[in-house]
Amino acid sequence: MTLSVDAARVLADLHELAAASGGEHAGAKRLAWSEDWSAARAWLLARLAEIEGVSVDRDEAGNLWAELPGDGSTEGFVIVGSHIDAVPSGGWLDGCLGLLAALEVLRTLAGAGAPPAVTVRLVDWADEEGARFGRSLVGSSAVAGTLDPDDVRGLRDAQGITLQDAMASVEVDLDGAAAATARLDGARAYLELHIEQGPVLLDGGRLASAVSGTFGDERYLIAFSGQSAHAGSTPMHLRRDTLAAAATAALEIREVGIRHGGVTTVGAITSQPAVITAIAGESELMLDLRHLDAGALATMLAECLEACERAAAAFDCAVAPRRVFGATPTPFHPRLIEVARAAVDAAGGGDGPPIPSGPLHDATEIGRLVPTVMLFAQSDPPISHTEVEDSPVEALRIAIDAYGATVGEAIALVAAGELEPIR
Amino acid sequence: MTLSVDAARVLADLHELAAASGGEHAGAKRLAWSEDWSAARAWLLARLAEIEGVSVDRDEAGNLWAELPGDGSTEGFVIVGSHIDAVPSGGWLDGCLGLLAALEVLRTLAGAGAPPAVTVRLVDWADEEGARFGRSLVGSSAVAGTLDPDDVRGLRDAQGITLQDAMASVEVDLDGAAAATARLDGARAYLELHIEQGPVLLDGGRLASAVSGTFGDERYLIAFSGQSAHAGSTPMHLRRDTLAAAATAALEIREVGIRHGGVTTVGAITSQPAVITAIAGESELMLDLRHLDAGALATMLAECLEACERAAAAFDCAVAPRRVFGATPTPFHPRLIEVARAAVDAAGGGDGPPIPSGPLHDATEIGRLVPTVMLFAQSDPPISHTEVEDSPVEALRIAIDAYGATVGEAIALVAAGELEPIR
Repeated sequence: MTLSVDAARVLADLHELAAASGGEHAGAKRLAWSEDWSAARAWLLARLAEIEGVSVDRDEAGNLWAELPGDGSTEGFVIVGSHIDAVPSGGWLDGCLGLLAALEVLRTLAGAGAPPAVTVRLVDWADEEGARFGRSLVGSSAVAGTLDPDDVRGLRDAQGITLQDAMASVEVDLDGAAAATARLDGARAYLELHIEQGPVLLDGGRLASAVSGTFGDERYLIAFSGQSAHAGSTPMHLRRDTLAAAATAALEIREVGIRHGGVTTVGAITSQPAVITAIAGESELMLDLRHLDAGALATMLAECLEACERAAAAFDCAVAPRRVFGATPTPFHPRLIEVARAAVDAAGGGDGPPIPSGPLHDATEIGRLVPTVMLFAQSDPPISHTEVEDSPVEALRIAIDAYGATVGEAIALVAAGELEPIR
Repeated sequence: MTLSVDAARVLADLHELAAASGGEHAGAKRLAWSEDWSAARAWLLARLAEIEGVSVDRDEAGNLWAELPGDGSTEGFVIVGSHIDAVPSGGWLDGCLGLLAALEVLRTLAGAGAPPAVTVRLVDWADEEGARFGRSLVGSSAVAGTLDPDDVRGLRDAQGITLQDAMASVEVDLDGAAAATARLDGARAYLELHIEQGPVLLDGGRLASAVSGTFGDERYLIAFSGQSAHAGSTPMHLRRDTLAAAATAALEIREVGIRHGGVTTVGAITSQPAVITAIAGESELMLDLRHLDAGALATMLAECLEACERAAAAFDCAVAPRRVFGATPTPFHPRLIEVARAAVDAAGGGDGPPIPSGPLHDATEIGRLVPTVMLFAQSDPPISHTEVEDSPVEALRIAIDAYGATVGEAIALVAAGELEPIR
């Protein structure tokens, strides 16, 4: 079906929400599980209440759902949405753009005179950011069945409050969250719009794009152990300098990313004793590796760990890698990617190739279980998680229009039986 | 003259002092300007009081002096000494070895039946370590005329006490300290024994050595500025990664040290935001460069700063170096170096070449104004400033014997008019 949403209404909603939760470009105040977050959701509920025929409820993991029933001709439902929570002093578009575009989809469908061919559900995922407790994608991973309560039970925020207690403060029971997996029973597609949060579209002169999937991600802390010694009294050939080892590894790691077309990042090397007159006896390297292809990611990881081993040996140091996070890549649904690409082109965004997403999204969790695609609007400046986060109005317009059209086409594909469930 | 000291008495004194100020191998408690330090000096004064004919006083900078008059045949005086202050939980030899060997020199000369040909003065330099306020060589630099009160007036310890107030607590007036420069009027030689505090003698299988001088030292903090960005969303070719720039510079800096036969140390690279999922937008590199030759040191510095410029440019970053410390090299007196070398050989330490000192010493300040030499005893383990600092007993015996013989020969050279003053 052709679905023409009104981008201007989405922009108006975005400005209204920004003003209501922190102020325009003043840093969003919508930290998950906080009173600010509940207030933002109350604002969303009021908008949903204005749409005739929509019913609202919350699942066991704290995700907020709104349903617009279909005409009964097709079983199951299509999911649209994103997240309203934000990092402290976050931007006005991260999460909200996709959520309020989904709101506009519901509003447009509800006003179309006839129900859609298939039920459409909006979701506001709980705690996508993980900014307060360090665990992102909380609500969507609960629904995807990948949230182990015991893994996150002990996480505490800066005030010492546990994630479990923070969830309980809004009447969500961590140990009951797994029941939310039932929410995907009958899900036929998931569609999410987001800002890119990076420089690829800006650099390519493109305002919007279909997204090919989200990168798999491996994170390690790699400890090098050598010998701290006096900078003046220790000749170069008698040193066991962990900073030299870690620096050598960091530069090889960079080449691994370039060679495989992924991204490899050493965000810091932390050395001890960190005194200007002492050789670093201990250094810890932060490693983050991402690639859209699981095989390439595994190869990159092996090469990076080998580079660390070689660098340690070259400087007579020991090395001990410790895995701190891992996520497999989520390639999106090929048919939906093509639909989104065509929709971007039709909306005036050009026929550029789909780009992968470096950051994780709720679509990372859902895309493994349900045919999924994302769309990106250009970020300019090409950064996020700060109050200066922004996108050109024309990019937002094209992305919102393309998103609406993609949802319309997805509904049509589901109704036509052309979008097979993954599971 | 031949001067044969009794190394066993020095070792007994060292053990007694260690037991009295922290305990044997339990971490020395002799932090400068503290009550612990005053207690250690009281112990030293008691030992000096046992030596007949020695008078004691303190100069305006807080250095303790003890004089054994000569026979009047030669003007001026020879200085022996080191320092009794220690870093917190320091070793039992750093400073004390040289000071108590000088005590033994005085004791031996006083017991020789006839006064020496030239007056001999022992000095205990105040606050050699700088461990409490960050400024080392306080007492010796005051005597050398290189301590500017305004440079150190505002220095505070961890408790917020200023250096000026700490000095005042033992009745030393910072603004009057410069008057201590008169203490070098008539100084004909300065001789100091110390542990090496490094691995060169251990690595070379040598127990002791003459020292050729102390390295000049240049210290910089070098700030690289790029762009912090999301590790997942920023392709490799669009990064301005300061950690990559600093790591590249650190490895080139290492090669500069090797190429010029000096030592170059990057003790740490501190990056911001130091988050595993973010590219480092800011990185600060700690740089320490040392060489015995002033020209070579200047060349090394220029090459290191050029390497930082090149590395910054290669990663599209800016760079800003800031000098935080500089000291010119102090080559010791050639004739005294030869005397000390021969004395080490005669004491059973072998005829190895003099080695330079990476660490600064009080001899660094005095050696620019007075004919000076140092001797080193092997360090095993080859570290210092920790309670595990140690030296083989045989290394200490050889070094103490050689030190005594060097002082005796220096007295003879002065008496023979063969050691010209530098100024």
